[in-house]
Amino acid sequence: MPRKASLFRLSMGDPGDVSAIEACLADGRLKPDAIAAILGKTEGNGCVNDFTRAYATQSLRAMLARYLEPHAVETVPLVMSGGTEGALSPHWIVIAAEKAEDAVTPGPALAIGTAITPPLSPSEIGRPAQAFRVRDAVRCAMARAEIDSPADVQFVQVKCPLLTAARAATVGGDVATVDMLKSMGLSRGASALGVGLALDELRDMPGDMIGADRSIWSSRASCSAGIELMACEVVVLGQSPGWCGPLRIASTVMADAIDAASVRSLLARVPGDPALAVRAVLAKAEASSNGMVRGQRHTMLEDSDISATRHARGFVGGVLAGLVGHTELFVSGGAEHQGPDGGGPVSIIYSLQASDLGT
Amino acid sequence: MPRKASLFRLSMGDPGDVSAIEACLADGRLKPDAIAAILGKTEGNGCVNDFTRAYATQSLRAMLARYLEPHAVETVPLVMSGGTEGALSPHWIVIAAEKAEDAVTPGPALAIGTAITPPLSPSEIGRPAQAFRVRDAVRCAMARAEIDSPADVQFVQVKCPLLTAARAATVGGDVATVDMLKSMGLSRGASALGVGLALDELRDMPGDMIGADRSIWSSRASCSAGIELMACEVVVLGQSPGWCGPLRIASTVMADAIDAASVRSLLARVPGDPALAVRAVLAKAEASSNGMVRGQRHTMLEDSDISATRHARGFVGGVLAGLVGHTELFVSGGAEHQGPDGGGPVSIIYSLQASDLGT
Amino acid sequence: MPRKASLFRLSMGDPGDVSAIEACLADGRLKPDAIAAILGKTEGNGCVNDFTRAYATQSLRAMLARYLEPHAVETVPLVMSGGTEGALSPHWIVIAAEKAEDAVTPGPALAIGTAITPPLSPSEIGRPAQAFRVRDAVRCAMARAEIDSPADVQFVQVKCPLLTAARAATVGGDVATVDMLKSMGLSRGASALGVGLALDELRDMPGDMIGADRSIWSSRASCSAGIELMACEVVVLGQSPGWCGPLRIASTVMADAIDAASVRSLLARVPGDPALAVRAVLAKAEASSNGMVRGQRHTMLEDSDISATRHARGFVGGVLAGLVGHTELFVSGGAEHQGPDGGGPVSIIYSLQASDLGT
Amino acid sequence: MPRKASLFRLSMGDPGDVSAIEACLADGRLKPDAIAAILGKTEGNGCVNDFTRAYATQSLRAMLARYLEPHAVETVPLVMSGGTEGALSPHWIVIAAEKAEDAVTPGPALAIGTAITPPLSPSEIGRPAQAFRVRDAVRCAMARAEIDSPADVQFVQVKCPLLTAARAATVGGDVATVDMLKSMGLSRGASALGVGLALDELRDMPGDMIGADRSIWSSRASCSAGIELMACEVVVLGQSPGWCGPLRIASTVMADAIDAASVRSLLARVPGDPALAVRAVLAKAEASSNGMVRGQRHTMLEDSDISATRHARGFVGGVLAGLVGHTELFVSGGAEHQGPDGGGPVSIIYSLQASDLGT
Repeated sequence: MPRKASLFRLSMGDPGDVSAIEACLADGRLKPDAIAAILGKTEGNGCVNDFTRAYATQSLRAMLARYLEPHAVETVPLVMSGGTEGALSPHWIVIAAEKAEDAVTPGPALAIGTAITPPLSPSEIGRPAQAFRVRDAVRCAMARAEIDSPADVQFVQVKCPLLTAARAATVGGDVATVDMLKSMGLSRGASALGVGLALDELRDMPGDMIGADRSIWSSRASCSAGIELMACEVVVLGQSPGWCGPLRIASTVMADAIDAASVRSLLARVPGDPALAVRAVLAKAEASSNGMVRGQRHTMLEDSDISATRHARGFVGGVLAGLVGHTELFVSGGAEHQGPDGGGPVSIIYSLQASDLGT
Repeated sequence: MPRKASLFRLSMGDPGDVSAIEACLADGRLKPDAIAAILGKTEGNGCVNDFTRAYATQSLRAMLARYLEPHAVETVPLVMSGGTEGALSPHWIVIAAEKAEDAVTPGPALAIGTAITPPLSPSEIGRPAQAFRVRDAVRCAMARAEIDSPADVQFVQVKCPLLTAARAATVGGDVATVDMLKSMGLSRGASALGVGLALDELRDMPGDMIGADRSIWSSRASCSAGIELMACEVVVLGQSPGWCGPLRIASTVMADAIDAASVRSLLARVPGDPALAVRAVLAKAEASSNGMVRGQRHTMLEDSDISATRHARGFVGGVLAGLVGHTELFVSGGAEHQGPDGGGPVSIIYSLQASDLGT
Repeated sequence: MPRKASLFRLSMGDPGDVSAIEACLADGRLKPDAIAAILGKTEGNGCVNDFTRAYATQSLRAMLARYLEPHAVETVPLVMSGGTEGALSPHWIVIAAEKAEDAVTPGPALAIGTAITPPLSPSEIGRPAQAFRVRDAVRCAMARAEIDSPADVQFVQVKCPLLTAARAATVGGDVATVDMLKSMGLSRGASALGVGLALDELRDMPGDMIGADRSIWSSRASCSAGIELMACEVVVLGQSPGWCGPLRIASTVMADAIDAASVRSLLARVPGDPALAVRAVLAKAEASSNGMVRGQRHTMLEDSDISATRHARGFVGGVLAGLVGHTELFVSGGAEHQGPDGGGPVSIIYSLQASDLGT
Repeated sequence: MPRKASLFRLSMGDPGDVSAIEACLADGRLKPDAIAAILGKTEGNGCVNDFTRAYATQSLRAMLARYLEPHAVETVPLVMSGGTEGALSPHWIVIAAEKAEDAVTPGPALAIGTAITPPLSPSEIGRPAQAFRVRDAVRCAMARAEIDSPADVQFVQVKCPLLTAARAATVGGDVATVDMLKSMGLSRGASALGVGLALDELRDMPGDMIGADRSIWSSRASCSAGIELMACEVVVLGQSPGWCGPLRIASTVMADAIDAASVRSLLARVPGDPALAVRAVLAKAEASSNGMVRGQRHTMLEDSDISATRHARGFVGGVLAGLVGHTELFVSGGAEHQGPDGGGPVSIIYSLQASDLGT
């Protein structure tokens, strides 16, 4: 019997507000043990001292503990991304998966698979070893999602660890960097290259390209680093004939911050009004490192009052919202090796179902 | 003999960098006494302590003093707007006007007229008296631009004064507000309503609507308040049969921050690729006061780290850049009575000339 | 048998880090049911979108739930203040009270009492009714602390509610203001005036002075507004002969942001090195409303990148840290009617115990 | 005949407000050709995109051009430092030097000397070659100031260049770093080490210590990097028997951000009330790199909303203002090799003159 994914995009009143998810659990629309992953776009600064992510995670776990066994609570992938600059709107994306009980739209349809690497040694973080471990986890998650071909994978979210002084000390200082902020970039970058390896976008993995060679990137990786874990958590989204239902996923790459054309092409696949049919948008945004967009100077990297990642999320959020027609968009920053310099991957999950199309 | 407007959109390396304008003056493309107005989008925060506007103005005047008589230097309208959030690009827009010497594209074409009110009494600032003075100045500028019908006016920029404690004291405290920041909003609002009166968008002008009734607005006003003047400077842009040349202007109103549809309709008039043919975009952006965009919460008004005007400029800048295809867009904030709550007027100046269309 | 207060000042690794408190509970130094109040200085922005306070509160309650009955968890006053600007250090202050079992330093010593008002009607918030309710709660808390004379009260912390649109609607719009941020100031101000009434600093309470007449203030009030409650929670600290032990409390008022002299006088009472003997510093800081400190201009109110409250906390934190010799100082902002305009109350809790004096 | 220095500390209404200096020139208190150096503390963010420094400099030069020959205008050292966080007050410090015409307080008294290095090659910036050039310029300025012994130098201000991509290209990429922000730190650090060499604080200058070994520092260097010059401008302040008058200078080093004790010792030399007698305070502030002050965590380095330099200036400004009694303090950030990690040099210029002492 095929599986069927469902997706709940729900508004968040504040980073501790899990009431919309709980309402779905309470009225039976969402079955607790069907929850495959929860993403949250929270309203912090998305940078080092953004505690809205941890607050949202703690709030989620406390709520889930009323519906699931402790072990299940711990293993649901929870991916929080801070930063709703501009008119971006804080929201949850809950993806559930279950056996398709009755006749639904046949597939290939949205498929989800998750996996987790073994805990990394601090010496591995930001180095090729991390990329290889992520590659293996992506392949494992693909298998669980019954996605055979890398071409059918549209989005891979990786949550990965960072380095602290204490962690560096446990391996005698044999680490990629002693700078915590820099380690976040290297860890994201190594994870993205691992996704690239799993999806056959890259063939080999020279250690010195991590964080250095911006011309090497995965078109479907989205990575975030957090202090709360030592393993890499992987969520793979794609399409599989083993799944059914009305949900579909497709992706593209914005070549730069104003590459609306590629997103417009992507949206052309969506039946009906995107504002209704597009159930989720997952994108990465960043400031181009050369300080230019199509030959014109931007000021994101020189602004010492607002970090470049905040500028980029708000601006690219505007580009996307103008095209999609709503503001609950999962736009995240820190796009090392995730799409080209200054651009980034964009995935959309959309519905073929009449009620989602306003018809 | 008809007049002809020309427009130079020029990159700015920093707020004191007037080299691109000077290069145009030096090589004869721009005649000093043809300069009708200069707009500048500078990279400050666009708020109270944004000194990039004054720095740019000082730099402009010092440079112009090498080409013009002191009186002429003082009377060229210089409109600086701070804030290039997201990937917006700092730039100058120089509009020149001269007799059309030879055969050019016939009009009606872009026309420009300027006027200045008498110095306001501090008691008038932010009150109906200011609106009436702006109304009269707009009509005067229209006459100078040979624009007969209000319907042919597409954009009115007003630079207006604000209140300080010292100014309030000179009128014995008979002022609209004692709060300097608030006086900026009231002054912008009164100016916008004055534009609305001149353009027959409003019929009367109850004093208590200024800054209070957000449902009353002009569709073509763009106002900024500054400490350096006591009069209101008005720049009117529109189309007139008395002008010729390839430049045209058109405008619309964004109903909210993601109203791409109205801008797409506007751009449909432009022949060829907007990225080439659109010579200037002039827009206002602001956060909706109810904290929502199409039913979804935004966080701009609650963010105590980044002011709402900065969020709004960056985000709406993204919406517009995705449509236009470049980032030198004159998006300014503080849109009291300038378009609907959360939306704002958008004007484009575009060219019919083959060389601007990539043909 | 007299009571005895003890105080634990404990470092906080992040707003969710309650491990230092739990360590005290685990090893028996702190008895769960002796906890009288917990204050936390968290590293958020201390303004509207500071979620570190809610995150810290949630983390505390989750931890306390492992040691106390649900009702007890709910009733412990938890006062979170955001903002550790400059070198201020995030920390907890846990105050415990219990029967003095054995012979200790005789009193009068530090005494603590708490009380809570009935839930306020939204119509009462920011109005004299709130002040009267706070006055009554302060008197109740004084009685519980066995402090007879208002002169023996040194510090009163009030946590009070704010207005939201929804709350205003429940009373048909009969509220002091419809602006949420402004309601926080009015609520803090009304609470402070209530403290002033209870401590005989004020005699009457004209409704129109709240938030308006900066010359009226309490010298020992410290108030913060939060969305999570509708009542006012009061914590009174002072000295009482009914309490014993080595802890003492004293207070002063800084006349302006650089009034080190008054704090130096206060510290003169402390035996030994303040860096050791001073167990806690509780202070309010704010930018003077006239933009001046002793005739010299400050820029806190004009800075649109950093809120004035953040500037004030960091700067006054520096003044105090230079005098006290450490950086775990509970400096909070938003000082309406809490000390003079631009200044604020300062209380110190210090120890007479040899081991705290480095002797 | 000995020389005599005078010092004018003057308030600044905004970064373009040079009126207070012009008033001194206009009424003869300050002779144009006596101006030896002008320092300005402006209200920008003190970081990369702080244009208040350039605006102040442009305003100064335009004003000075009315009193001095063009060459003289160009050669007066103008040292602008951005950032008046907390209650720090924007101000100018004008130091003048002239022949002592009549009998004044005998020396040794405040002496000033300036020098400038040859233009640096981009390859030299941030490397030992820069340090050696600065060392030579400091020695030259000392000779001009008639200061024989390095022990009599109390403060050396160095304004030094930074690297840009264009500059790096001119030397085929043979540069210390390609990161502009990083080059500012390396340039400041190399300059500081050059001061240390000139003052016999250091003996040798291994290239790999620049920006790396925080244990090596000068106790009297204060360095800032700017894009507008390729040479290093040096201003030396000290005491010399060749100078007379009531002004004296002394210096110390704060060991950390709350080291008030060392400043208190320094102020003990000042006759009378420091708030009157101290004519100028020149200090460096920075966040300690280990994230701690006396064992307690600070959050300056993790705050992605406010840069650490802004936190440090406001906080250390508070420490100093509490001691000195006023807020016109020249506290600047970016203290690589300028004092110990987390601390910094502090110099005071004070007066022995009765009228400055309130007597």
